[in-house]
Amino acid sequence: MSALPRTGIGIDVHAFAPAGSGRVLALAGLTWPGEAALAGHSDADVVAHAAADALLSAAGLGDLGVNFGTAEPQWAGASGVSLLAEAARRVRGAGFQIGNVAVQVIGTRPKIGARRAEAEAALSAAAGAAVSLSATTTDGLGLTGRGEGIAAIATALIAAIE
Amino acid sequence: MSALPRTGIGIDVHAFAPAGSGRVLALAGLTWPGEAALAGHSDADVVAHAAADALLSAAGLGDLGVNFGTAEPQWAGASGVSLLAEAARRVRGAGFQIGNVAVQVIGTRPKIGARRAEAEAALSAAAGAAVSLSATTTDGLGLTGRGEGIAAIATALIAAIE
Amino acid sequence: MSALPRTGIGIDVHAFAPAGSGRVLALAGLTWPGEAALAGHSDADVVAHAAADALLSAAGLGDLGVNFGTAEPQWAGASGVSLLAEAARRVRGAGFQIGNVAVQVIGTRPKIGARRAEAEAALSAAAGAAVSLSATTTDGLGLTGRGEGIAAIATALIAAIE
Repeated sequence: MSALPRTGIGIDVHAFAPAGSGRVLALAGLTWPGEAALAGHSDADVVAHAAADALLSAAGLGDLGVNFGTAEPQWAGASGVSLLAEAARRVRGAGFQIGNVAVQVIGTRPKIGARRAEAEAALSAAAGAAVSLSATTTDGLGLTGRGEGIAAIATALIAAIE
Repeated sequence: MSALPRTGIGIDVHAFAPAGSGRVLALAGLTWPGEAALAGHSDADVVAHAAADALLSAAGLGDLGVNFGTAEPQWAGASGVSLLAEAARRVRGAGFQIGNVAVQVIGTRPKIGARRAEAEAALSAAAGAAVSLSATTTDGLGLTGRGEGIAAIATALIAAIE
Repeated sequence: MSALPRTGIGIDVHAFAPAGSGRVLALAGLTWPGEAALAGHSDADVVAHAAADALLSAAGLGDLGVNFGTAEPQWAGASGVSLLAEAARRVRGAGFQIGNVAVQVIGTRPKIGARRAEAEAALSAAAGAAVSLSATTTDGLGLTGRGEGIAAIATALIAAIE
């Protein structure tokens, strides 16, 4: 009997930056000039971060903090998509092939629809596998409904190469 | 080597309607007379919506907004289970078979337990595949713990037909 | 054509206990002396609970409430890992093999990193299958960002034994 594929999960949340922060929104591998930016030490790309965490989680390789934290300072300031690409490389290096990653953005803005194909292309290129992007809102409730930040949730499927 | 199956994810949240709204709660493909209803332009069936979004997400077909939004006005006012059924039809039309969908309701009410089998039957009939339903609470915390609304989270597994 | 594997999902949230509660934090199958404890009638191990719920969800066996609630009083007060072990036993008893479970802790404390391998060993021993553990924070937002509690989200993959 061949081994079963493995599933992984990842969530990320960042707060909106204060007005006048000078930051530009980075989300889903794209920049969004004119949209409210997210705050963070990183580029705060919650979509790329959630996708990377889902991949690492599926492979049992820990999380972004373990892989790209203070122990590996060369990743400080790296973009979300570069972390996604490196996470995918490490998952493959551990002996897995990547099936797909599915990410949902939870928030009121920006509207993803018009740039969904562009974002999926950027994320899929980084992961070297199909990454799908979708979006939802929370009817005005919770941290995203109150406009405090943007959340993303991802699931990934990988399999050991036999 | 045959293609790996694909995973998808979907969350939905709706707020409770004000007292005296005249709405009846629609949840998990059932109506719940006497229970506090959810608000929304739709029937606000967060379980059916999350399940539909998870399926679309797995197939890379976008989300409820893309599929049933203003570009397709014939779906305005459609029930959650009819959107789930149509999402499943589109996923199959894109060349996939549906393995299963698992949905968890997050909220303090209604109590799902006594009607779980009935709800799973309604959802599975709509999707044409096994849909499981479970429930949890959040210890009084967050938007569902405060009784502001109900959330649902779903994951789906599909595979390309070879 | 062989049956597809099945995916499942589970979330759990518990609030921190008041100072002086005398409780010790139970999380991810470990005890954490000196860390703020979670409140609950159970040991409040949100990681073990989310993992158990994801397994039950994948198998269509309901949830912790259905399986270990008032109808089965012998489970009152059982530890999270013992519920995870029993959930895994019931999933296998229903004819499934367990592929893996992936759990992400969402919260500001405790720091998981230094004890991740130990936690994964405890959880995997309970489930009889690979359980991966990762962690994230929410940039100060939401119930976990405000330090009100800890959340965990899990996904599981199982397959019918043919």
